[in-house]
Amino acid sequence: MSDNDDLLVRIKEHYQSMSKGQKLIAEYIMAHYEKAAFMTASRIGEQVGVSESTVVRFADLLGYDGYPALQKALRELIRNKLTTVQRIEMSADFNDPNVLFKTVLKSDINNIRSTIEDIDEDTFNSVIDNIFAANTIYILGMRSSAPLAQFLGYYLSFILPNVRVVTSGVSDVFEQMIWISDKDLLIGISFPRYSSRTVEAVQFAKERKAKVVAMTDSHLSPLTKWADYTLLARSDMASFVDSLVAPLSLINALIVAVGQRKRGDVSMYFGELEKIWSQYHVYVGKEKDE
Amino acid sequence: MSDNDDLLVRIKEHYQSMSKGQKLIAEYIMAHYEKAAFMTASRIGEQVGVSESTVVRFADLLGYDGYPALQKALRELIRNKLTTVQRIEMSADFNDPNVLFKTVLKSDINNIRSTIEDIDEDTFNSVIDNIFAANTIYILGMRSSAPLAQFLGYYLSFILPNVRVVTSGVSDVFEQMIWISDKDLLIGISFPRYSSRTVEAVQFAKERKAKVVAMTDSHLSPLTKWADYTLLARSDMASFVDSLVAPLSLINALIVAVGQRKRGDVSMYFGELEKIWSQYHVYVGKEKDE
Amino acid sequence: MSDNDDLLVRIKEHYQSMSKGQKLIAEYIMAHYEKAAFMTASRIGEQVGVSESTVVRFADLLGYDGYPALQKALRELIRNKLTTVQRIEMSADFNDPNVLFKTVLKSDINNIRSTIEDIDEDTFNSVIDNIFAANTIYILGMRSSAPLAQFLGYYLSFILPNVRVVTSGVSDVFEQMIWISDKDLLIGISFPRYSSRTVEAVQFAKERKAKVVAMTDSHLSPLTKWADYTLLARSDMASFVDSLVAPLSLINALIVAVGQRKRGDVSMYFGELEKIWSQYHVYVGKEKDE
Amino acid sequence: MSDNDDLLVRIKEHYQSMSKGQKLIAEYIMAHYEKAAFMTASRIGEQVGVSESTVVRFADLLGYDGYPALQKALRELIRNKLTTVQRIEMSADFNDPNVLFKTVLKSDINNIRSTIEDIDEDTFNSVIDNIFAANTIYILGMRSSAPLAQFLGYYLSFILPNVRVVTSGVSDVFEQMIWISDKDLLIGISFPRYSSRTVEAVQFAKERKAKVVAMTDSHLSPLTKWADYTLLARSDMASFVDSLVAPLSLINALIVAVGQRKRGDVSMYFGELEKIWSQYHVYVGKEKDE
Repeated sequence: MSDNDDLLVRIKEHYQSMSKGQKLIAEYIMAHYEKAAFMTASRIGEQVGVSESTVVRFADLLGYDGYPALQKALRELIRNKLTTVQRIEMSADFNDPNVLFKTVLKSDINNIRSTIEDIDEDTFNSVIDNIFAANTIYILGMRSSAPLAQFLGYYLSFILPNVRVVTSGVSDVFEQMIWISDKDLLIGISFPRYSSRTVEAVQFAKERKAKVVAMTDSHLSPLTKWADYTLLARSDMASFVDSLVAPLSLINALIVAVGQRKRGDVSMYFGELEKIWSQYHVYVGKEKDE
Repeated sequence: MSDNDDLLVRIKEHYQSMSKGQKLIAEYIMAHYEKAAFMTASRIGEQVGVSESTVVRFADLLGYDGYPALQKALRELIRNKLTTVQRIEMSADFNDPNVLFKTVLKSDINNIRSTIEDIDEDTFNSVIDNIFAANTIYILGMRSSAPLAQFLGYYLSFILPNVRVVTSGVSDVFEQMIWISDKDLLIGISFPRYSSRTVEAVQFAKERKAKVVAMTDSHLSPLTKWADYTLLARSDMASFVDSLVAPLSLINALIVAVGQRKRGDVSMYFGELEKIWSQYHVYVGKEKDE
Repeated sequence: MSDNDDLLVRIKEHYQSMSKGQKLIAEYIMAHYEKAAFMTASRIGEQVGVSESTVVRFADLLGYDGYPALQKALRELIRNKLTTVQRIEMSADFNDPNVLFKTVLKSDINNIRSTIEDIDEDTFNSVIDNIFAANTIYILGMRSSAPLAQFLGYYLSFILPNVRVVTSGVSDVFEQMIWISDKDLLIGISFPRYSSRTVEAVQFAKERKAKVVAMTDSHLSPLTKWADYTLLARSDMASFVDSLVAPLSLINALIVAVGQRKRGDVSMYFGELEKIWSQYHVYVGKEKDE
Repeated sequence: MSDNDDLLVRIKEHYQSMSKGQKLIAEYIMAHYEKAAFMTASRIGEQVGVSESTVVRFADLLGYDGYPALQKALRELIRNKLTTVQRIEMSADFNDPNVLFKTVLKSDINNIRSTIEDIDEDTFNSVIDNIFAANTIYILGMRSSAPLAQFLGYYLSFILPNVRVVTSGVSDVFEQMIWISDKDLLIGISFPRYSSRTVEAVQFAKERKAKVVAMTDSHLSPLTKWADYTLLARSDMASFVDSLVAPLSLINALIVAVGQRKRGDVSMYFGELEKIWSQYHVYVGKEKDE
């Protein structure tokens, strides 16, 4: 499980065994976490009337590797509640574009790595099962997540006849899901900052008793409330843009896993597609290379 | 520089210093690389009348770490010419979905890592310069690359007033670029298997004398012929789906770099956007969390 | 001028010259027009304490051809406030599909005819002037009006380089107009039932001081509040579907008028397009007919 | 039946009873109709060696009201083969924008009127039957016909769960129809100048044995070759823009007829939609008017 999701869980679990001073810290943090995230250990101590070292031991008790790790967890907790302007102000300043380039790509490597660590194997398998069990598979993504929904829909449609991408268009997202029922599956994709409409649409699907998979960044995401299964992928990026790199890699895995289970058919379907692609010159072919 | 791009370059460079037998191998490979990519060292030896060890030394001479490394380079060379069906047949068979999951995500980490290694710093900087110099910035992506173009366009439009995403729609891509001129910039995005229409559209932009940036996987890509600048990102994936994870990470870096250069303005623009987002409840806010 | 738009105007104009009983009717109608629209003359008389014939003379005074004509005007006034379910219940029942077919098409002929009668020549001319004066022309339509916006944008883009269609998509409509200013023109298209988001977007454009053209069905439309110019087209249809036939015919006229003013250029632009269409086989050509 | 479709039919029917001179005229016209359409009666007479009055009587024999009517039929026959540039040059020149406005709208009234006259009642009924019999209803329109397909799909989706709009997008039109079979229905919409891709897609659907409805302007349209049913609507416009007003009115009739047959259900479906529209403030409501 990832560090950032369980700060509140950790506090709850250790609460009974805390000293009186630690309980004060816990209560202060839970009530003022947005402020606490940007306070030093000594400043928090001041606020609740304990010593700096009590605050540091509090972090240790919760299993964090020092106070900075606790602070990091706090910041991640509030991250989706920061406005973009606050995030721009918080973000690092790069004078060298190539340092910037490497920092961004390395941070994406870390996002994928954390996503590998966070994966729940049973959930991943169940999602594949549900994809094959559904009458219709609705794939929902809006705003920056719309490209993810389109990419997933693009490839799944080659393998499965019953896929529908739901995104902003001529019809409202609710209208596009007006026929959803308990026989269907919705894969809802949303990352911070979470689109209100996506959350409403996921709730709508759940109220119609559809199975719901949330593809999101944390168990604290507002999507999880309506989800039967939650697939986590990291989207951390120290900038105004959320990184959807790890989510896209997770989507690759989903597509390959679905293809794997229909291996024989997939070969046949793509045989058909190859004929079409060739007849209508969809892809650059050998004759054009020369 | 990456291994796969320069096989032909390496052959050319070492040709003068090759033994007669090695020259025969070189000629055979260049004439029949699609077949050679799937032949053993001893089989190639047989074909051209030299020993297996001559073939192995040939790989060493070119700087490859053994014959398998040469063969890998050959396969990458032809990869975009394989049909999807051939690729499905070549791809590994996973019985365990979680091994599959990890294999896919790790291969994406490798894609990003190679992308970091391949980056040409001057090119990256020049692309940013050109984005700021252009009258209109056209961002073109079709088929599986359409989501990439949309994602890049989505964020650049927050920072720059003169961005146009060009993709399949009511109007043809040519019609969407009918006003393009030498004052404009086209960022063309295409990965194997390369869409014919994208290549034609990039050529069209170049004929109209627009500056052209190709975002693609290799210097052998058909886009590079028309490009002033080529940004490379790896898209290797041992499956029927091409991985656009590293290209998306590269796009993150582009967006952050453009934002960085207009740092003050970006803060102001997003201040405006925050007001709109708040007024129209675009994002999940605090009042909805409780 | 059309009957339905000016009921309130007519009442206002004749108010001074009305008898005391007529003034009571006028006040009742203005306060309860949704109810009044479905009451008989005698029932309205009862309500306000006058005779049925006073109500009939009231209709005459306002220039209506009897009380049924007044009632029709009232119903049109409230039409956009009826829910679709109420409209389905109010709509005629056709047993013969061919009677239905002719009824629908004839009602569309009437819609166009009324649109010809309603046209304000100066407004039409001013709109054309404003299209040529604008830095950027934004064409906004959502939901059932999205196809109208796309059609208008499709053709204007062949003639003018600075056209942007704004509709639901990856980005929000506000984000698509984030750069709009007092140098720009917004053509907002909305017909009953008016989309809230369209009205908000038109208001947004006006607050940014853009010139605004409303293409809508009546001077009572919520768009007109923010519009510099209002182009009227009828959308009456005795069914759950609004007819956008007359609005589309009005759009034809706009396109032809814009083309007319750039006649020489248009010929040249389409000369260019013909070459592209021919090179890429966009249209069925002679060689394919045989 | 309309004048323009049957010129060739008329010639065929009367051929046996023609004089020798008339047969020469018939043969000349059929071989050179593109030239003949712009020749005077006397010029045609000259070409084939008969008198002008023989040509005039030839027109009478075919049932035309004089030679100009025959010439009009000829011109309509070739109209879709004219390039846009030729059409611009042929189109009238309007100095007064308001004459232009009225001319365009009146010509659309005529288009609808001809559409009423051309309707084949049995075909219209059969199309409705086929819509209800289909597993999936694909609605295909590209380029200027894309808005028509979207409008039809928008409304049919409220009534039927199995509607798919096929148009240019992330996936190719063929890919969007990859699952089409003999249980499905394709409604293909195309008007002059006919999009090649639409014709290919209609052919593709027919080869997959789907039922095909062509919505087009004439029995000579390239779509009819693959169609089980052809719904005609006029698209004449003396300008570079094709008028899709009569086709849209025909689409209105289709929607109303489909709704009519599911009258009870439609009321219920829209009851559901009303709740959604109200909950999410999709339409301007009373509370916003005040």
